[in-house]
Amino acid sequence: MKIVIFAFDGMTALDAVGPYDVFARMPGANIEIAGLERRIVRTEQGPLGLSVEATLDQVAHADLLLIPGGFGTRALLREERVLSWIAALDRGTRITASVCTGALLLGAAGLLRGRRANTHWGVRERLREFGAEPSAERVVRDGKYATSAGVSAGIDLALTLVQELAGRQVAEAIVLGLEYDPAPPISFAAVSADVRAALASAIAEREAKHSAR
Amino acid sequence: MKIVIFAFDGMTALDAVGPYDVFARMPGANIEIAGLERRIVRTEQGPLGLSVEATLDQVAHADLLLIPGGFGTRALLREERVLSWIAALDRGTRITASVCTGALLLGAAGLLRGRRANTHWGVRERLREFGAEPSAERVVRDGKYATSAGVSAGIDLALTLVQELAGRQVAEAIVLGLEYDPAPPISFAAVSADVRAALASAIAEREAKHSAR
Repeated sequence: MKIVIFAFDGMTALDAVGPYDVFARMPGANIEIAGLERRIVRTEQGPLGLSVEATLDQVAHADLLLIPGGFGTRALLREERVLSWIAALDRGTRITASVCTGALLLGAAGLLRGRRANTHWGVRERLREFGAEPSAERVVRDGKYATSAGVSAGIDLALTLVQELAGRQVAEAIVLGLEYDPAPPISFAAVSADVRAALASAIAEREAKHSAR
Repeated sequence: MKIVIFAFDGMTALDAVGPYDVFARMPGANIEIAGLERRIVRTEQGPLGLSVEATLDQVAHADLLLIPGGFGTRALLREERVLSWIAALDRGTRITASVCTGALLLGAAGLLRGRRANTHWGVRERLREFGAEPSAERVVRDGKYATSAGVSAGIDLALTLVQELAGRQVAEAIVLGLEYDPAPPISFAAVSADVRAALASAIAEREAKHSAR
C-alpha cells in the first residue's frame, strides 16, 4: 500500500503528521513525502521544517494520496504543476484524501465536482467554487474521496481509512498505540461567540485579500 | 516566550507536532527545534524527517521545554549529553513538559523524583524507576512539570498549558483554528480486550529486550 503525502511551504504540520502517524502504524504501509523540490519545506508557522524525499515527477503512483492543508494551499491553487500531478495520481488511487484546506487543492484539480466534501470550517463555502457540495461532517466519504474538517480532523480521517483498508482490529491497535482518547481542556462547542466571530472575520478578510491578488 | 522542542532519531512525530501546532498559534511564542546535531532527524516510523535547527549547546534557555517521546527515547536514557542539557534548561524554565515516553527522559534527568507524572499507558509503571508516582490522568500537572499520556495527548497538554500561560480566550481561538473537536471513529474504551492484551505484551517484550541490552 503506497501512501503519498504532499508537502509544501506554508502547510500546516499537523494536517500531515496526524494522518502520518496513523498510517505509519498500518502493516504494509509504504509512505512517501513528495513535494515540488527535494528540500526542507517550512510549515505554516515557520520554525518547523519537514523533509521532502521525492519530487513530484518521481512519484507517478499512489494507492492513497493525502493532501494536507494550510495557508500555503492558496498560492498553489494556480500552480499547474501541482494540480496536474494531483489529477494524474488520482487516476490510479484507491483513495484520494485531504485534510483541512487540502480540499481546495483537490477542488482546483477538478476532483470534487458534484461531490460532497469538507474543509476547515472557516472556508467551507469556498468548496462551491469547485462544484463541490460543502458538508460539515468531520470526515466526508464520497466514492473514493475522503475529505476532513480542519487540522486535527486528519487523525479521525486516517483512522476511518485504516479501518476501511485494514479492518477494525488494526485500527483498534493504532488507537491504543497513539493513546487516542482525546480530552480537550476546552470543548469546541464551548468556545465563546466572540472568539468565533473574531476568527471567522479574520479568516474571511485573509481569503478576500488573497482572492484579490 | 521561548519554547524549545527537543527532536531526535526515533521520536514519534505527532508527540512533537501536536503541541507544536498549538504553541505556534500562541501570540509571542518563539519556537526552536533543538537536537544533538543540526540535521534531519528520522521520526519513529522512518519516512518522515524533521529538521533540527539548533544544537543543544546553542540552546541555553527555554521558558517552556517540551520533550516528545517515541522508541528513540530508550537509547537516550543513558546519553549524558542529552540528560544534562535537559536538567540545565530545566533550571531556567517556567514549565518543563513531556509527551508520551518523553517522561522517561525527564525521569532519567532526575526531574520527576517525588512527582506525579504520566507517560504512554504501556510503560507507565516504568516511571517508578525514576522515583515518580505514575498517574493515569491525560495531562498531569505537578509544580512546573506537565506530563501527558501517549502521543495524541500532546495536543491536550499543549492546550492546557496555553490556557495557563495566555488565558482562556487565546486557547479558545486555537481550539477553533485547529478545529479540535475530535470524533474518534473507534473509541478508546471500546477497543477489544484481545487487542489490548496483544499490544501490552508486545510493548512489555520490547521494553524487556531493551533493558537487557
